[in-house]
Amino acid sequence: MTMLSLAAAKERVAAVFVAAGASDANAASVAAALVTAEADGLKGHGLSRVPTYLAMLKSGKIDGKAAPVASRPRPGVLAVDAANGFAYPAIDLAIAELPSLARAQGIVAAAIRRSNHCGSAGYHVERLARQGLVALLFANTPGAMAPWGGSKPVFGTNPIAFAAPLEGRDPLVIDMALSKVARGPIVAARQKGEPIPEGWALDAAGRPTTDPAAAIAGTMVPLGEAKGATLAMMVEILAAGLVGAHFAFEASSFLDGEGGPPETGQLILAIDPAAMGGAWFAARMHDLVGAIEGQEGTRLPGMRRYGLRAAAERDGIAVAL
Amino acid sequence: MTMLSLAAAKERVAAVFVAAGASDANAASVAAALVTAEADGLKGHGLSRVPTYLAMLKSGKIDGKAAPVASRPRPGVLAVDAANGFAYPAIDLAIAELPSLARAQGIVAAAIRRSNHCGSAGYHVERLARQGLVALLFANTPGAMAPWGGSKPVFGTNPIAFAAPLEGRDPLVIDMALSKVARGPIVAARQKGEPIPEGWALDAAGRPTTDPAAAIAGTMVPLGEAKGATLAMMVEILAAGLVGAHFAFEASSFLDGEGGPPETGQLILAIDPAAMGGAWFAARMHDLVGAIEGQEGTRLPGMRRYGLRAAAERDGIAVAL
Repeated sequence: MTMLSLAAAKERVAAVFVAAGASDANAASVAAALVTAEADGLKGHGLSRVPTYLAMLKSGKIDGKAAPVASRPRPGVLAVDAANGFAYPAIDLAIAELPSLARAQGIVAAAIRRSNHCGSAGYHVERLARQGLVALLFANTPGAMAPWGGSKPVFGTNPIAFAAPLEGRDPLVIDMALSKVARGPIVAARQKGEPIPEGWALDAAGRPTTDPAAAIAGTMVPLGEAKGATLAMMVEILAAGLVGAHFAFEASSFLDGEGGPPETGQLILAIDPAAMGGAWFAARMHDLVGAIEGQEGTRLPGMRRYGLRAAAERDGIAVAL
Repeated sequence: MTMLSLAAAKERVAAVFVAAGASDANAASVAAALVTAEADGLKGHGLSRVPTYLAMLKSGKIDGKAAPVASRPRPGVLAVDAANGFAYPAIDLAIAELPSLARAQGIVAAAIRRSNHCGSAGYHVERLARQGLVALLFANTPGAMAPWGGSKPVFGTNPIAFAAPLEGRDPLVIDMALSKVARGPIVAARQKGEPIPEGWALDAAGRPTTDPAAAIAGTMVPLGEAKGATLAMMVEILAAGLVGAHFAFEASSFLDGEGGPPETGQLILAIDPAAMGGAWFAARMHDLVGAIEGQEGTRLPGMRRYGLRAAAERDGIAVAL
């Protein structure tokens, strides 16, 4: 375990992926995403993913040399074929194109198919907000949640990410999976032989369970129960149905080399706030942020990650590769 | 109380609004929305709104003769000034324009400002889905929920609606407020002198309460707690910050004639599924619906309202006007 600067960590991580057969450009894209997530304190999307990404590269589930291909079927749409490579180079391609398109069109969508795990969804929308855009990202993930009333996983935990620029400070970033809790604490409870709280998960028959092993064989409870399951369905339609990707229930795991490529999808929307009929956005955001931060006990979403990132930029991060 | 056909009910309701000073066109638009919501079993957005709409007309909080004005600041954006009239004529204008724009651009946004209560949000996106589009609607409403950890209402209950066309059957329609429960049951509990379940609402100090009066003086609990509060913030930014509307904490009530116009907003997104790079959408939706309906105990969202609507088309609805 060595402490490395973020730049050195990105080089180290990229070298690992190049050694495993990824192209230089793809390895750099993946390394930038994983190191940023690690620096932001999002360990589940950080360096912990290196072994599983390597397993997917080794088995051919990820094509490390794939180059994403973009087309422009309509003025407001960028269709991106991630070509069963990593998600990050395809998303980077979209993020390079979307700002100028959004400023011209007002709103533009990037529809990414044949994709994979997109890591910290907030990382992607944050980059668009830093260019002055309001951005939304919908992604689907392998099957984890059942339709409400059912027992078999049809939807993923399906993150929704959102970012908006704020004048004179870092963007507001929202990034949430649609399950009540992440799978990580359930896996940890099984390892420790401890029960999980009721309300986190259902067993394979769709019944509430406190047994972490039964939970892992079953499904995750959506946030807000029935309403969260419905939101997860909406994300499946946006991130997979529209873009031509596999649904959660068809996707192979993001966590091993078994099976074919997951072929999941992402839909990114980028909106130019100056295109909505008036020049009010910065002032409106100032008023909203004031109403939130003026209340004790509240904070803007996404701010914790900036604090951790600043510390990592100063102190470096631990890399065991 | 008379049973009227839906067409006769619309005429009766429209006549009431014309008598109160609304233009013929505005009265017809409002009547169509309220009667459809009533037929769909959505009583809170149906004829129960007539007295409060009349109060808003009488006090000038709604301008019954306002004509919405649309502009096209960018190819993908329709900016609509609802001119402090009813929301429905402004939304109808957007729905008339969006399909051809969406087919040309791939994705298009309608940004509606100086608006008001938009009723059944599903009614609006359903009409776009019937024209082959995937549609999203975000609306903000007067202050009802606090930022997580706070106690003062900053966000509305802020519905998200979504619709997608299905081949050979009615569209899939999602329509959900972001509060855990609606305010209606809390008002009913106060009238009956009964407590409400813990977890529905917070008192004015931000503490959980089972006293319906304290709940009404306090805030509603968001669906999924912290995550729901964050989603409500996202909707404020999309439906008000972007479009140039009042935020929830600035908006006057939808339920009385007190104060100035609420000036809330709506953002509607319309997407042409044929514009995403391939002709897969209908088949993809067929597969997803099969995976959901193939599980016992599940159903597609929005189907209950179609059943009730069919019954109302056959039997009429009760009108006490």
